[in-house]
Amino acid sequence: MPSPFDNLCQHVRETALLASTVETLGWDERTMLPQEAGAYRAEQMTYLAGLVHQKQTDPRLGEWLAELAASDRAADPHGDATATIRNLRREYDRQRKIPQRLVEELTRATVLGQQKWGTARKADRFADFAPQLETIMKLLREKADALGYTGARYDALLDEYEPHALSKEVAVVLENLRRELVPLVEAIAGSVKKPDLTILKRRFPAPAQETFGRAAAARIGFAFSRGRLDTTNHPFCTGLGPNDCRITTRYDEQFFPSAFFGILHEAGHGIYEQGLRGDWFGLPPGEAISLGIHESQSRMWENLVGRSQPFWQHFYPQAVAAFPQALADVPLDAFHFAVNNVRPSLIRVEADEATYNLHILIRFELEQALINDDLPIADLPAAWNEKYRAYLGIAPPSDALGVLQDIHWSAGLVGYFPTYSLGNLYAAQFFDQADEEIGPLADQFAAGEFAPLRNWLGEKIHRQGKCYTAAELIEQVTGKPLSHEPLIRRLRGTLGALYGVV
Amino acid sequence: MPSPFDNLCQHVRETALLASTVETLGWDERTMLPQEAGAYRAEQMTYLAGLVHQKQTDPRLGEWLAELAASDRAADPHGDATATIRNLRREYDRQRKIPQRLVEELTRATVLGQQKWGTARKADRFADFAPQLETIMKLLREKADALGYTGARYDALLDEYEPHALSKEVAVVLENLRRELVPLVEAIAGSVKKPDLTILKRRFPAPAQETFGRAAAARIGFAFSRGRLDTTNHPFCTGLGPNDCRITTRYDEQFFPSAFFGILHEAGHGIYEQGLRGDWFGLPPGEAISLGIHESQSRMWENLVGRSQPFWQHFYPQAVAAFPQALADVPLDAFHFAVNNVRPSLIRVEADEATYNLHILIRFELEQALINDDLPIADLPAAWNEKYRAYLGIAPPSDALGVLQDIHWSAGLVGYFPTYSLGNLYAAQFFDQADEEIGPLADQFAAGEFAPLRNWLGEKIHRQGKCYTAAELIEQVTGKPLSHEPLIRRLRGTLGALYGVV
Repeated sequence: MPSPFDNLCQHVRETALLASTVETLGWDERTMLPQEAGAYRAEQMTYLAGLVHQKQTDPRLGEWLAELAASDRAADPHGDATATIRNLRREYDRQRKIPQRLVEELTRATVLGQQKWGTARKADRFADFAPQLETIMKLLREKADALGYTGARYDALLDEYEPHALSKEVAVVLENLRRELVPLVEAIAGSVKKPDLTILKRRFPAPAQETFGRAAAARIGFAFSRGRLDTTNHPFCTGLGPNDCRITTRYDEQFFPSAFFGILHEAGHGIYEQGLRGDWFGLPPGEAISLGIHESQSRMWENLVGRSQPFWQHFYPQAVAAFPQALADVPLDAFHFAVNNVRPSLIRVEADEATYNLHILIRFELEQALINDDLPIADLPAAWNEKYRAYLGIAPPSDALGVLQDIHWSAGLVGYFPTYSLGNLYAAQFFDQADEEIGPLADQFAAGEFAPLRNWLGEKIHRQGKCYTAAELIEQVTGKPLSHEPLIRRLRGTLGALYGVV
Repeated sequence: MPSPFDNLCQHVRETALLASTVETLGWDERTMLPQEAGAYRAEQMTYLAGLVHQKQTDPRLGEWLAELAASDRAADPHGDATATIRNLRREYDRQRKIPQRLVEELTRATVLGQQKWGTARKADRFADFAPQLETIMKLLREKADALGYTGARYDALLDEYEPHALSKEVAVVLENLRRELVPLVEAIAGSVKKPDLTILKRRFPAPAQETFGRAAAARIGFAFSRGRLDTTNHPFCTGLGPNDCRITTRYDEQFFPSAFFGILHEAGHGIYEQGLRGDWFGLPPGEAISLGIHESQSRMWENLVGRSQPFWQHFYPQAVAAFPQALADVPLDAFHFAVNNVRPSLIRVEADEATYNLHILIRFELEQALINDDLPIADLPAAWNEKYRAYLGIAPPSDALGVLQDIHWSAGLVGYFPTYSLGNLYAAQFFDQADEEIGPLADQFAAGEFAPLRNWLGEKIHRQGKCYTAAELIEQVTGKPLSHEPLIRRLRGTLGALYGVV
């Protein structure tokens, strides 16, 4: 007779079969769907999301969990079985609070939301998207109220992406970062040393970008036998099965960094997904801890590896061969300086490492206002532009380059943005530790060797699944709680050296 | 309170949401899936197919159908409601006979079957595929026995693709065809007039083929805002929703007809799918009648339209512009003769109109032997080659060009092949009728006008959904039962003229 634990796992694995199917429909929706097929796809996803929610809230789960709570108290708290039970208990209690109707309405609203966002962005007309966004925010407030919270209503949503995090704590972290970053960005702005950005704005044919980006992703360790790279207008990474991780990017033939660093970023997410234990797929030991930890992996490969001088020591000759017309006359150092350009800009996904967190701060503040204080949707573009002027000193000339640039809110992803900044912090702290334990990493990168770092991340982070919380893991791996110092130290070091400041 | 009919339709629409999701997973599996992701995809599809079958056999369906059987006896037998009830009754009774376990086993076996077929075909090793094919045939025999039959066991499977058809009747039709075709093919073989085939074997770059094929598909009426064209090693067409029909092809840069006529063929299927009434999606009035009728649409656009002289009067200047190196020195008539080449060949999907049905006859006989008489799988390649020698006078030099060429058996599609020949017969008979009612079609094609034929097909066939059986429809539309004469007449006429025979 199967034990309660076996029953529990079997049930959750079945739920994962359905949930990963919804993910597949979502991937297809964003990469492949014919123009007029959106409405029916929304119905499919809505119906399946309802089935997923039914399975997630099946009362038998509650019974099995209750039986299991009585036993195993002495077990290793970070063992697979204990972590499975602890996480599923938390998830079950959470899901039981959300009515099935709300799950279905949110799915429908956000599938249509993404479609409407896509066309509104193309047409550069926020008004085309506003009514749908209004619906989504109303449903999200309803969801937060159903989930409950002690501090801010927003925390109920944040918890879905960064379990156990509180917005007031995140606000402190971002404020610490901002305080240190502003003088650094100012010093850089005042420096006489400037990279020549025109070299990145020459012509880089999209097919060559794809070939080069694909080769780099494979080299750092993204396995294409277990994944894909496609083109979308908003890059993303999604895991559709234990051996099926799909990343996307967009190509700008007049700007090299856009697709390339996007690919490294998504490949970083993908390497985490591919490093999870497949035999636990759909169960906590085979799942990512939090989006903050997920983002630490993408930002590490994009920035700490991909923008480093040794990385380009290895890859630059290949880049010159791939783009001879653009790069034949450009020395390595000029190229490396250009991809580390620091300058306030409009688009988050193309922002430099130093100003990036200010983009996040803007979104974090606005989405709290939308959820906690009912900021009217009609006022959102003005509020967005106002904050860009205040924090970055620039004003978006259009909504497409402003409030419409990100897909997140259209997909109902509120509470998601701050995890990007947490990711930057985690990344720097993990990277320092890896360098200490298995470094110098720089020498390895220069030799084109990325397996040592990837294996270290695999062992210390990926294979741990959800057996630790994010806070426990950073302490477990680095011996210290999360701090903003490693990130600031690194930015001062690398950018300071390039710009001759600090 | 919803009526039993409303309940019935709502339930079946929900089933269609799930079934179309399985179709989407299947499309993705064949076009996009990373190499190592097959096993998990099989699990997803198996689980969902089980859910579909659960819904198809829900006892409430039986109750609603019983309530409905008592009423409406006087209604129009071809009305939407009556046809819905009649078809759902038939389908429900059929599904109730198949155990859930068998549905799941067949799904798993055929998803893996297609994967194993793909690799075996690439490696040209039948033995790599044989054990999986063995499993599939065993399960299909089991399925046929569960469904029951009065004549041959094979008929239970045939009925799924061509409802109400019997293999002994199909055998007669194919025999009639064969008797007329063999002397025609012999006369053609003896003719001194021969097309110059080398012009089709020049270099036709794949990207230009795709652009040209896409434009032709759009011109004849395949709507890309409601569909896609992708690349696979076995061309197919699948409807994933009322506005989401996807076709595929494969490109051979050394042989023009392969992709182009494949695209026309699949676009023909797609035009049928796109012509079904979307508000009835998933219900009989919004479904295709049978695979024979489906194939009549693809074969009509591929052959009766696409290989006609007037079609090329319109398209040939565009073809010359698309492939200047290959075609600049080729006159229209030489090209047209070449794409109407008649010659026994190895590959069914590339066979000419005259020999095509002999390819079908071979498969039809072999699959009956596999299902009715337990022909051992190990003997299949030899039996295949033997029949090619006997009927077409040629011997496949390898399994890849022989028994491994078609995906069907790997996907569990037994009883499917004869519908191809039925499609050829229906196509010729419908085409004659259309020419009589709205012709001369030839003049329209020469002027690039395909909307009249498409609209006629839409009104007479596509919009009728499943309100008629195939036998009823051909009688309703053409005033006569199905006959092989229109097809033979056409082949004698067009091919006879080209070759100067008959």
